[in-house]
Amino acid sequence: MNILRTIEAQDLEDIATGGAILGTGGGGDPYVGKLMAQQAIKKYGPVKLVDISEMPDDSLIVPVCMMGAPTVMTEKLPQGDELMTAFRALEQLLGRKIDAVLCGEAGGVNSTVPFIVAAASGLPLIDGDGMGRAYPELQMVTFTMHGVSATPMVLCDDKGNSLVLDTVSNAWTERLARAATVEMGGSALLAFYSMSGAVAKKAVVRGTLSLCAELGKTLREVKAAHGEPVSAIAEALDAQVIFHGRVRDIERRTVGGFARGTAQFEGVEEWAGHTFSLQFQNEFLMAARDDKILVTTPDLITVLDAESGVPVTADSLRYGLRLKALAFPSNPQWRTPEGIALVGPRYFGYDVDYTPYVG
Amino acid sequence: MNILRTIEAQDLEDIATGGAILGTGGGGDPYVGKLMAQQAIKKYGPVKLVDISEMPDDSLIVPVCMMGAPTVMTEKLPQGDELMTAFRALEQLLGRKIDAVLCGEAGGVNSTVPFIVAAASGLPLIDGDGMGRAYPELQMVTFTMHGVSATPMVLCDDKGNSLVLDTVSNAWTERLARAATVEMGGSALLAFYSMSGAVAKKAVVRGTLSLCAELGKTLREVKAAHGEPVSAIAEALDAQVIFHGRVRDIERRTVGGFARGTAQFEGVEEWAGHTFSLQFQNEFLMAARDDKILVTTPDLITVLDAESGVPVTADSLRYGLRLKALAFPSNPQWRTPEGIALVGPRYFGYDVDYTPYVG
Repeated sequence: MNILRTIEAQDLEDIATGGAILGTGGGGDPYVGKLMAQQAIKKYGPVKLVDISEMPDDSLIVPVCMMGAPTVMTEKLPQGDELMTAFRALEQLLGRKIDAVLCGEAGGVNSTVPFIVAAASGLPLIDGDGMGRAYPELQMVTFTMHGVSATPMVLCDDKGNSLVLDTVSNAWTERLARAATVEMGGSALLAFYSMSGAVAKKAVVRGTLSLCAELGKTLREVKAAHGEPVSAIAEALDAQVIFHGRVRDIERRTVGGFARGTAQFEGVEEWAGHTFSLQFQNEFLMAARDDKILVTTPDLITVLDAESGVPVTADSLRYGLRLKALAFPSNPQWRTPEGIALVGPRYFGYDVDYTPYVG
Repeated sequence: MNILRTIEAQDLEDIATGGAILGTGGGGDPYVGKLMAQQAIKKYGPVKLVDISEMPDDSLIVPVCMMGAPTVMTEKLPQGDELMTAFRALEQLLGRKIDAVLCGEAGGVNSTVPFIVAAASGLPLIDGDGMGRAYPELQMVTFTMHGVSATPMVLCDDKGNSLVLDTVSNAWTERLARAATVEMGGSALLAFYSMSGAVAKKAVVRGTLSLCAELGKTLREVKAAHGEPVSAIAEALDAQVIFHGRVRDIERRTVGGFARGTAQFEGVEEWAGHTFSLQFQNEFLMAARDDKILVTTPDLITVLDAESGVPVTADSLRYGLRLKALAFPSNPQWRTPEGIALVGPRYFGYDVDYTPYVG
């Protein structure tokens, strides 16, 4: 098996930064996941990152992730044991050895969490995920479009409780797992969407962990060289800077456990005299400039500190922050009618048709 | 194996009536459970009711029940298939044949639901349960006091979703199963608290299904003979009529998914000039006459229509109804410090110590 690269504890810094950029304002703070993954790599050794094309068609691939708010776990840093419990329990349920670990979501905390299982199990980690970004619900993965069932799924908490779900649809998996996660205190660890290598080759959004690592490295190097971070990130993503401005107003509300809201910006420098708005539901889902919609989900909107290039989450938007917004096209799988049905603007309640962002 | 009696579809009428009396105002309407059990008996044949002493110490006993509001299911009458799915899935998880079916709760809908599994599986049904009455939460069973774990538990809904729970305590089972049941539309079917015959002999509240049948028969016969139904039921239960009056006021609120409230009565005939109040949280949990507390949980308070003797639930209390309240001591297992900790008045938030009701 060709190994793309070997990931050491130090490499997680870049991957977490890149994960926050692909997190498009949501996906959870990668900090906790990074610490857990670094601990696991220090304990068990480095992780082998491989391309999905290396896996035999009949191999068994299992994604793992954290559900809910990772911040809840910061007081008592989990050791990743719960994630291994979920992973091994699913392996036993499936009745055969798992051959590789996969990310469900490359954006946010879940860009780093699967490294824990890869390190502890010694299994390769696939360079890819099921979103190419972050999304708030479990069924919002390319796997769903390829007919992969989220269940059997094992869900564990940090207290020692575990659940095995077997549901009639991936939307039902989301509903039941969400209810359990809320009851468990707001965060849980899961193993789910088991699939063959053959299916994974079609379904996986490829190269997203390498992309995370590259984004993190770019930001780190451009800072060291006193360069211009936002331009460097835009170039690495083949993205456009669609606004530069200050946060003027933020309206937030919590609906069904999700942080929804709108942020208003007023332009500075090249965008002085213009306005900009961002709609978010955990992630940034729609951006408008001078009241004209420029980008909507599934295309990606990420927001960086104008000075440092550090990615900014929807949660941390504050009055007066000077920020730059970037936009770039999503993975082509999301731009199909099936993809738009799962994660298009109408699914999130915005009364707009999807228009592909062309840059 | 000695069979106490064979239960035919017709016998479910009396058992459901008795279940409503032991339901002490809650436990869910036995009507739906009765219809389902009657269908199952017509399809699969009668049920063998046996005393727990008949079961070998190393036999495997599994309680089954419905969680949530049975009324939710009335539009689409379940066939009991979901309950058999839960039962067989738990059997497979346990890796050995189940030898007998048990009631978790003899009051309300769950006095009849286990007949479905007993009929469909051909297994004997134990004459007993884990409460000797109805209670609102899963951990409120005598089994908990004997160290029996509620999990592994299988929970199924009528859509085809299922969950396997493995929790660190029976209180956690309640929390996670409750959240899932709410999400599933308000009602689910479960198999749980698997235990050996040896443990069941200590833990089970014995004879409660026979008592249900006797209560139902008593009410039926006394009506046919134009006798005095409430006195007949009081005699059969060795209970006292503690009030006779009309509902004057009802205050209800929904707290944490439970119907809580207080009903005020004004006395008639022998109790004219006196007042009476009932506190309920699904079940009737505390009764006071002329502001003096007479009975609290775990001792039983049941309310009957003064004329017909038909049991009245907390849900169906209405202004002006003329009712009689009966009280009688609970099973001795509930009157221990462990029992009081699980289901005493303070657990339900009433600032009163438990004083055993002596009649």
